[in-house]
Amino acid sequence: MASQQTLQFRTQGRSTLDITGEVGRVVRMAGVGVGLVNVFVQHTSCSLTITENADPSVRHDLETLARRWAPDGDTAYRHDDEGDDDMAAHARSVLTGCSVTVPVSGGELLLGTWQGIFLWEHRTTPHARRVVVTLIRKKKKTHNNSFPCVF
Amino acid sequence: MASQQTLQFRTQGRSTLDITGEVGRVVRMAGVGVGLVNVFVQHTSCSLTITENADPSVRHDLETLARRWAPDGDTAYRHDDEGDDDMAAHARSVLTGCSVTVPVSGGELLLGTWQGIFLWEHRTTPHARRVVVTLIRKKKKTHNNSFPCVF
Amino acid sequence: MASQQTLQFRTQGRSTLDITGEVGRVVRMAGVGVGLVNVFVQHTSCSLTITENADPSVRHDLETLARRWAPDGDTAYRHDDEGDDDMAAHARSVLTGCSVTVPVSGGELLLGTWQGIFLWEHRTTPHARRVVVTLIRKKKKTHNNSFPCVF
Repeated sequence: MASQQTLQFRTQGRSTLDITGEVGRVVRMAGVGVGLVNVFVQHTSCSLTITENADPSVRHDLETLARRWAPDGDTAYRHDDEGDDDMAAHARSVLTGCSVTVPVSGGELLLGTWQGIFLWEHRTTPHARRVVVTLIRKKKKTHNNSFPCVF
Repeated sequence: MASQQTLQFRTQGRSTLDITGEVGRVVRMAGVGVGLVNVFVQHTSCSLTITENADPSVRHDLETLARRWAPDGDTAYRHDDEGDDDMAAHARSVLTGCSVTVPVSGGELLLGTWQGIFLWEHRTTPHARRVVVTLIRKKKKTHNNSFPCVF
Repeated sequence: MASQQTLQFRTQGRSTLDITGEVGRVVRMAGVGVGLVNVFVQHTSCSLTITENADPSVRHDLETLARRWAPDGDTAYRHDDEGDDDMAAHARSVLTGCSVTVPVSGGELLLGTWQGIFLWEHRTTPHARRVVVTLIRKKKKTHNNSFPCVF
C-alpha cells in the first residue's frame, strides 16, 4: 500500500520547527504495517533534518555552526538576488538535505527516544513550506523483528 | 510494483549535471501510481543532490563553499593516491550524499518548481558515473491527497 | 514484501564501523526481488554514511575534516551537558545523516565496488547503537535493467 499527503507549514524565519507529530499522524492514519515513510520538502532554501528533540540549545548551536558552514552575505557569492541569506540558505539546504526517510511499524514512526523530525527554515523571513509525506508499507512483514541482532 | 534502471553519465570534471529529465523519463515510462523513486550513484567521489535549478550561479557558489568544506590538497590528508582532489572528493561526497529519494505520483516527480536533481562531479577530470534509479509505487493510493493539510 | 530487522552494534568511541556485511546479510535472507533497503540509526550523535571501503586513510581524513566542521568544546556552544564531544556529535550527525537508502536486486545490495556502509560513532566513548534495516521489494520487476542507458 502507498499513501501520500501534502502538509503545509508556515515558518517564522530562520529557525527549526518540530514536525514529528504531524508526520506521525499521517503514519498512524494509514494504519498498521511495516515499511518506510519519506518526508520531502519541495523547496531549496530550507531543510528536513533529524536531530535531538529535548534541549533547544542543540538547535541554537546548529544555527551557530550553519552560519560558519555557509555565511550570510559572503563576498564570494554571485547569487544574491533575494538578499544576504539567499545563497547561504541554498548551501545549508544542500548540506543538511531536503528529505528524510524513516522506518515505520504498527502505525508508528520507529524513531529513537531523542530523535525529532525538524523543518529547518534557512531564510530569515517567514515562508510557507510544502512537505510531501509518502508512506510505503505492507500489512504483513516477512521477517520477525522481535529480537534485535546484537553484534 | 518495482522497477529499476541503471543510467550512465559522462561528467566533464568538477561540475554539476542536471539529470532531472533522465530520472523523470524513467518514472514516466513506469506509468501511473503513487510512491517513491530513489536515485543512487555507485561511486564515492561524486554526489547526487537536489538544489536550485534556475540560476547557474547557485551551483558556482556551491563549488566555492565546497572548496572550503573540503580543500583540495590539504596537508593534513593521508589519502592522496589519485591527486589533490582525491580526498576532497570523498569528503564532499559524504557531506552532500550519494542518493536522493523523491516522491512520485501519476508518472511524475513531485519536485518543487525550483528543484532539480544534480549529479555533482567532485573529481577534476571527466568520469563515467553509474546511477541506479529504483521506483517503488502502487497503482492505487490509499489516501486522498487532493487538499494539502495546512498548519 | 517488506521486512524489518533491528541490529545492535557496540562502537569503540569515535571511529567508523563497516556494517555492509550485516546489512547485506539481512537483504540476502529476505530473498530475491527488486527494491530498496533503508538503514536507519536511532540516535542523534552518530551517523550512517556511505564512503570508500578500501583505504582506512579516507576515514582517518574524514575525522580530520569533521573536527573542523564541528569542533569539540567550541566556546560558542550552549549544549555541553555530556562533555566537549556532545554538541559536536549532534552537528556531525546532522551534516552526514542518520540513514542511507540503497537499491537492491536479486538478494544483493547494488553498491559500487568501492562503496561501504559505515556506522560513524561521533562520541568519544563506546556506545550501543540500534540500527533498523527495512527492505521493500517486489519479486518481479516491471522493467528490464539488462542494459544501462548511456548518456
